[in-house]
Parts: sequence; C-alpha cells; structure tokens
Amino acid sequence: MIPTLTWTPEGVRFIDQTKLPLEESYVLATTYEQVAEVIVTMVVRGAPAIGVSAAYGVALGAKNTQARTVEEFRPEFERICTRLASTRPTAVNLFWAIDRMKALFATLAASGLSLDEIRQKLLAEAHTMYEDDIAACKQMGAYGAESMPQEGGVLTHCNAGALATCGYGTALGVIRGAVEQGKKIQVYADETRPFLQGARLTAWELMADQIPTTVICDNMAATLMRQGKIQAVVVGADRIAANGDTANKVGTYNVAILAREHDIPFYVAAPWSTIDMATPTGDQIPIEERPAKEVTHFAGRQVTPNGVEIRNPAFDVTPARYIAAIFTERGVLRAPYNESLKAMELAG
Amino acid sequence: MIPTLTWTPEGVRFIDQTKLPLEESYVLATTYEQVAEVIVTMVVRGAPAIGVSAAYGVALGAKNTQARTVEEFRPEFERICTRLASTRPTAVNLFWAIDRMKALFATLAASGLSLDEIRQKLLAEAHTMYEDDIAACKQMGAYGAESMPQEGGVLTHCNAGALATCGYGTALGVIRGAVEQGKKIQVYADETRPFLQGARLTAWELMADQIPTTVICDNMAATLMRQGKIQAVVVGADRIAANGDTANKVGTYNVAILAREHDIPFYVAAPWSTIDMATPTGDQIPIEERPAKEVTHFAGRQVTPNGVEIRNPAFDVTPARYIAAIFTERGVLRAPYNESLKAMELAG
Repeated sequence: MIPTLTWTPEGVRFIDQTKLPLEESYVLATTYEQVAEVIVTMVVRGAPAIGVSAAYGVALGAKNTQARTVEEFRPEFERICTRLASTRPTAVNLFWAIDRMKALFATLAASGLSLDEIRQKLLAEAHTMYEDDIAACKQMGAYGAESMPQEGGVLTHCNAGALATCGYGTALGVIRGAVEQGKKIQVYADETRPFLQGARLTAWELMADQIPTTVICDNMAATLMRQGKIQAVVVGADRIAANGDTANKVGTYNVAILAREHDIPFYVAAPWSTIDMATPTGDQIPIEERPAKEVTHFAGRQVTPNGVEIRNPAFDVTPARYIAAIFTERGVLRAPYNESLKAMELAG
Repeated sequence: MIPTLTWTPEGVRFIDQTKLPLEESYVLATTYEQVAEVIVTMVVRGAPAIGVSAAYGVALGAKNTQARTVEEFRPEFERICTRLASTRPTAVNLFWAIDRMKALFATLAASGLSLDEIRQKLLAEAHTMYEDDIAACKQMGAYGAESMPQEGGVLTHCNAGALATCGYGTALGVIRGAVEQGKKIQVYADETRPFLQGARLTAWELMADQIPTTVICDNMAATLMRQGKIQAVVVGADRIAANGDTANKVGTYNVAILAREHDIPFYVAAPWSTIDMATPTGDQIPIEERPAKEVTHFAGRQVTPNGVEIRNPAFDVTPARYIAAIFTERGVLRAPYNESLKAMELAG
C-alpha cells in the first residue's frame, strides 16, 4: 500500500507528490505550520487526503503546544484550525475534518478533560479518520465496481487514487474494486494539466498495481471516445453540492460533456465527507485560482512568452445532470440528487 | 511580419518553431533532405506552411541536382517528391503542393524546356504559392472577421497563425481581420498539448501584434465557455474532407463538442488547398501518431513513470455537423458542406 501520509512519533510523513513518479521521497512535517505548507504546495493533494492531513495537523499542533492548560491552549487551537483551513478553498473535506476536530475539542474541553487527555483524543480522532477514509474507499470501490464494464476502457481524470486518500482511492478505488471482481479494465489516464496528476500519479500507482494504464493528453479523450475505446468515466470530487453539482479538478467538466456526447456514463466517486449539504449548488463552490507559474513553467523551465496572461482555475464544476451516479461508502446515489443526497444524509 | 519561411540564395530559412517563444533562432535548409527533416521535426509546422515548404524543397532539389538533362533529373525529381511527401501524413496541403510541382514539371518537361529553365519555373511556382498563401489568409481573414463578435472572447486551439502559414494566418488571420475591422477581441489560446503550439506560438505572435491573449490549459475551455467568456471558436485545419469533416490538431474535436454544448459557434478557417475532395469523409483521413516522447516529456524533462503506455495521435477529426462555417479565400461555406464545397469547387 502506498503511504500517502503516515503519523510518526516525530510528526506527519508525506510522500512528496510534487516529485513523483521519478523520485520517491518523503517530507516530514513536525509542526502544524509545516502541515499547512505541505497542503499549499501540493506535496499532499486530493480532497480526502488533505482532510485527514489537516486533522493530523491539528493533532500535531496540540502535541507541540507550550500551553499548560486547556484554557491557555484554546486561542492557539483556534489559530491552528484557522491556519489549516486557509490552505485551500475548494475541497470541503478540509473544512469537514477541521470542524470535526473543533467539535471534539469543544466537547472534551467542556467535559473538563486535561490538556494531555485532549491531546491523545485529538490524535486518536485523526487516526480514526485515517482508518475510516481507507474503509470508505474500499466500500465505495465495491459499490462502484458494479457499474464498471466487464471488459473495457475506463477514463479517469486527475488522480483520485491511493495518493489522493489515505489509501486505495476513490475513482481508482472503483477501478481497483472492478479489477478485484475479475473485470478486465484498461485505464485511460488524462495527464491532467497543469499539475499532471494523471501522467505522474495515476499512472505511477496503477502501474504499481499492474493495472493496464495508458496516459493521454487531456485533449485526446474525445477521439478515444469516438473510437469506442472508453466504456465508462470515473472521477473523484473535491466538493459535491446538495443538488449533486460536483467540483473536481479542472477539466472534469470537459470530460463530462464529452462523455455525454458519446453516450458514455460519467461517474463520481467520493466519501460522504466530500458532500456539502450546506452548499445548495455548484455556483456557490469557491474555485481556487492557482499561481500562473503552474501553467507557464514546468520543472523550472518557462514555456510561454514573457508576460503572457494566464488563467489557472484549479477546479471546475460539473452540473449534476451530467452525472450518471455518485458512488459513496453509504451507497450509490442517482438523480435527482437533491432528493437522493437528502435521503441518504437522513439515513446516516 | 513574422518570417515563417524565406527563400534565400543559400536555401530555405525557417524560424525554429521548436525553440519559440524564448529563443528566436533560424534553421537554414540547403538541401531537400534538410527541408524534409525540418518538416518531420516540426521546426516548421502548420498545414499551409508545410505545403509551401515542400514546394520550396522541390525547387531546392532541382537547384542542387548534379543532373545535366531533364531526363537525367526525372528519377531524382521523383525521389525528391517521394521523400518530401513522406514527412507527415495528415495535412493535405503537403500533397497538394507536391502534386502541383509534379504537374508543372510534367508539363514543362513535355514542352521541351531545358533543365535550367525548369529549375527557374519550379522556383517561381513555389514563390507564387508563397504569395498566394498570404493573399488567401488575408482574404479568408476578411471573410471570417464578419462572423467574429463586435466585442468578446474568441477561443482558438493550436497555432493557425502567421507561423502556420507564409504569413497572417488562417484562424489567427480571421482574428487579425476582426481586429483590423475595429472589433475588440480577447483571444483565449488553448496551450495545446503536447507540443504547446498555443502557449508557445499563438501567444507569441498575437502578443507581437498587441492582440490581448490569455493562455489556458486545454481542459479549462469548458469552464470559460460556461462563464460566458467565449463568444466564438475559430481553428485552422489540416484536411477538410468532401463532406466537411475536418482534421485538425488533436483537441479540436473536444473544443467543437464543448462549443456546441454552450451554443457557441465553432468556425474553421483554411485555404482551399486544405480541402480534399478526393477524401469523402473524415473516416478516410490518415491520422499521424507521433512519438510518445512528446507526451512523456515536458520541456525536455520526463514526467511519466518509466515504461508507461502512451497514445499520441497528432490530429483528430471534427464531424461537419459541429462546424458553423468554413472560411476560405473563395468565400464562406455553410452546411450542407458536401453541396457547398462541391459548388464552390466548380465555381473555381
């Protein structure tokens, strides 16, 4: 299993996803500020992974505090949470994880536990979220696998794999589930400009699992669809609004349109923590604009003319009407999503 | 005016499009083999430009021959044409140009002209094709400009500009025409993976003309369309079949689908030499598969895992039904294209 992030006695150890696939190196974050930095710079990325990373960041902040009492720690705890929440705006798992840590802290503090007891319980909570994330991936993988073709091509965009989660993956979990069910899947991985998560990360982790994978440029997808090489599309998500509109890595909306045009089902796989019932539609999801340099440069080398204007929205929103189903650990959701999401939320 | 290719007493001088935009350097091809190499390696690219390059390559072969008589030269002439025709398979302008040189040679040889006279006339023919290409671009630019918005965003894919022609450009000629008519155009240039013709070449030549240009990754187009930032799409073509199906740089078909989904007109601009009435539909257009390294390496650095499978089709085919109009120097064509193309061909 690929160790996306690991708690160690010294801090949180991350595989450096900016260096993969050619270099397998690790970054050790020993402070919550370092965890925040690791999220901002995309050493760790993927909505579920950054959620759990933030939870560990909170636990690390509690571990390192110089405060001697809960009341002394309280304002520092707020600063820790605020800093971690400021790292990236789109993936809701980040806020979900921090809110969960905040709620736990409030309960424990109100119960009169000592700072040391609270420290331990915050860390235990992060561990639980870590384990739950892997279990959720495996469960949604099993659910989603049913919708994969018995034999055929499956296109995925970005990396919604083990590296985007604590292990196994969401979209790639569905593919892994299908392979475990004996299905013969040929994966087509969009390289996913500008950060190349598909070319670098999806290809790397699927090759490690010996799942046949072909990397294509993002703009080749329509041609492969037209040639009949793709039977299904499955992607991850950074935030799913209450009506099913789904924010995911930029280019996902393109793929959804192309899939519809070729009558290919387009699926989303995400843990329940990605669903944001407080956001009514995709129009309210904040979309992060990342530095122009991600587009103008690669590996320190400039490719565009000096001073050219750039747009670099990191995510886009796929309207719910393009989505054939959403796979979660609680089950498979289908349109109308405002109803199916609400019903599944109430069922818990 | 950007000197894409220039005839000099020493041979054909090409701006090196693999080095732009950061380095403006030139390659001098002094033999027809070198012209062929320059086409294969994409030092020069763009359907109209490679057509004229091949014509100059033939003229250069005739200039350099050691043959002393037309009959002695004839088999060498065949080899020259065969070599130049073998460089790239998709753009029909290449074959159109070579066929035109072949037909001229046959006529001149049959007329009993001397080898030296034939040399001069082959070169004069290449010069004519060069001048005609620029004139055609300006004419189609003026025709196409009428369809551009008075003020708004225009998306283009790849580089169908001055650098893809002998000057002025096809799709970018339409944009230049619109700007000359006083229209306020904001260009969005798809970076155009894998070769980055948009990020490198389109951005460079439009910035030189001070036409506002924003580079985006190919997979950001749908989002900009949804945000209402794009009022029209205009692209070039490498081959247009008799039914209007259009081969162009890979990703064009994607853009055409996205444009239709957002009710944005999708236009093609190309000289008449790009129209291949002998090819009934897009299904018969050969699509060049280029080296995997163009995808696996970015700016000279490997980005994918060792040994990963790659697809790298250099072109795709946009079915005629997605095309709102085709702009040529003879006029504007509209659906049904099998009829309008036939009528315009007969009109000459």
